[in-house]
Amino acid sequence: MEIIVLGREDIKKILELDKVIEGVRKVYCLKSEGKTVVWPSLEYHFEEEKAVMDIRSGYVKDENLHGAKMLNNFPLNIELGIPSFCGMLLVFDSKTGVPLGVMDAAYITSMRTGAAAALGVKALARKDSKNLLIVGSGLQSIYMLAATLIAMPQIEKVRIADPFKYENAVKFAENAIERLTNEFKIENLDKIEFCAVKDLSEALNDTDAVITITRATSPIIKKEWVKPGTHFSCIGADMIGKEEIDPEIFRDARIFADDIVQCISFGEMEIPYKMGIITRESIAGELGEVLSGKIEGRKTDDEITIFDATGLALLDLVTGKVAIDLAKEKGLGTIVEI
Amino acid sequence: MEIIVLGREDIKKILELDKVIEGVRKVYCLKSEGKTVVWPSLEYHFEEEKAVMDIRSGYVKDENLHGAKMLNNFPLNIELGIPSFCGMLLVFDSKTGVPLGVMDAAYITSMRTGAAAALGVKALARKDSKNLLIVGSGLQSIYMLAATLIAMPQIEKVRIADPFKYENAVKFAENAIERLTNEFKIENLDKIEFCAVKDLSEALNDTDAVITITRATSPIIKKEWVKPGTHFSCIGADMIGKEEIDPEIFRDARIFADDIVQCISFGEMEIPYKMGIITRESIAGELGEVLSGKIEGRKTDDEITIFDATGLALLDLVTGKVAIDLAKEKGLGTIVEI
Repeated sequence: MEIIVLGREDIKKILELDKVIEGVRKVYCLKSEGKTVVWPSLEYHFEEEKAVMDIRSGYVKDENLHGAKMLNNFPLNIELGIPSFCGMLLVFDSKTGVPLGVMDAAYITSMRTGAAAALGVKALARKDSKNLLIVGSGLQSIYMLAATLIAMPQIEKVRIADPFKYENAVKFAENAIERLTNEFKIENLDKIEFCAVKDLSEALNDTDAVITITRATSPIIKKEWVKPGTHFSCIGADMIGKEEIDPEIFRDARIFADDIVQCISFGEMEIPYKMGIITRESIAGELGEVLSGKIEGRKTDDEITIFDATGLALLDLVTGKVAIDLAKEKGLGTIVEI
Repeated sequence: MEIIVLGREDIKKILELDKVIEGVRKVYCLKSEGKTVVWPSLEYHFEEEKAVMDIRSGYVKDENLHGAKMLNNFPLNIELGIPSFCGMLLVFDSKTGVPLGVMDAAYITSMRTGAAAALGVKALARKDSKNLLIVGSGLQSIYMLAATLIAMPQIEKVRIADPFKYENAVKFAENAIERLTNEFKIENLDKIEFCAVKDLSEALNDTDAVITITRATSPIIKKEWVKPGTHFSCIGADMIGKEEIDPEIFRDARIFADDIVQCISFGEMEIPYKMGIITRESIAGELGEVLSGKIEGRKTDDEITIFDATGLALLDLVTGKVAIDLAKEKGLGTIVEI
């Protein structure tokens, strides 16, 4: 048997964000049709190393794919000059159990997470949304921004906030056009204004859609700052105890999950759910149900909508399969007899 | 970053069973000292394909290793001419989260499972044991036999039974010496008698140690057949509903687990535990506690001892690391930039 092994540079050459968005949309829809299985996720904290690992796994029936992803986040690596975010994705053929490929999981995770955030904005923000606010200027933020600009060409203004270090937001805003052009081949960026913001309450005055992508463990955004009609794609909170927005924002919002079980267990919904601000019945549904037309997304221009994304191996598997197919087509990657 | 990718043939060239036995012994001991973490295992049944997959994962602190193994068992593959048993093992450095290697998991699983069975026999069978009975003549049985002959050079007679197809046991016994010599480099086999047996009740009359390695889901061995002083290493039952020996055998036996939580959840102990024949207090301990001298194994020549092994990713990780180190030393495997 042969498998293909793909490194980060191989995948960077191959994967195009618009195709990833389309793949993620398809998986969310398949999930809403009961054609996927999400296996329980696993996480572990390495105390001494101040690090965390998680294993996500699942099965995409219609695509005959199953597999697992192990992702490690070791922030102290930065001081050692090695990536903080390392992981591997295993993709198997579900008709035979034969391995199809093994690959770096960090880049795929970033791409599919950006796609998820963007699909949340596209499906649940007001159609006339022009002002985007990205909260968080870490490694993942550029993927959220790139995918959202592809999915929402009507965006005119992008604000970047960093609740922990304003200068990082400034740097991010300064480099945004260059990175979006070079790394994601996005064109016509000159009509978009990019700026860093210090005062979130002020920024939220005319923000239409917010993407939160931080490591926060207590709310950064207060309910009283939020104007009617705002959309939130909450991406950062993907483990127990992480939290980015005021739980009170959930009280009257129209709420969607990528996976309800995961979101109430360890997503942005975890805290409001545990506090009793929301119940399972408060959740309108999963994003896939909106994307496949099963349920309505936003109902009025005035309501707050929230998409809570905790991450699904299903997205990685489908994105990984796209990478495998393209790599074979283009002669990239390493074929190994296994 | 570079990782090494090892295929089944690479690993076959590298791994020696005595080193695997030593590695497994070490991990069991580390486990008894609280220096390992076993993360919850996961299994899924593919109805249509009559197949099953499981994910085992864990952390060996002292060795700075963590990782996961996904193993697929698709028995219908045989008709397609592809292996029924496919899987991959991911090994990471737990100080940095950096991936060290990726490899075929099927061969490593067979080798470390054989080592586990053999360590059970060595630690818990009577020291003067001469007669070994292997129940099951499938793909895994040769590994159990080879490891036990290495660990127990006093064995003089090996009986093979196949409760489902006697002819398979006959074939197995006929080929045993050749396979043990060629595949495992075991010498001095001419002093050992190998034979297939049809009647288990008769065979158990003068059997000292039994290794069960079948896919049975109801007992093959009845309590009334078992003479005092017999040892059982129960290997086949590693998923809910699997069962190889009469639950009543557990009633007065001295019982050991590879991992107590796993064994009562889905090992050979599952059924007697659910039936109330044993409680958690009936379990003397884990094999690692015996191997490290923390608790006594067999107490008298007359008692029945049972070792229930459900399989631990810890064993795969340490075995995988041995393979990685030897491969680098010998210039085998494929180095890939990841």
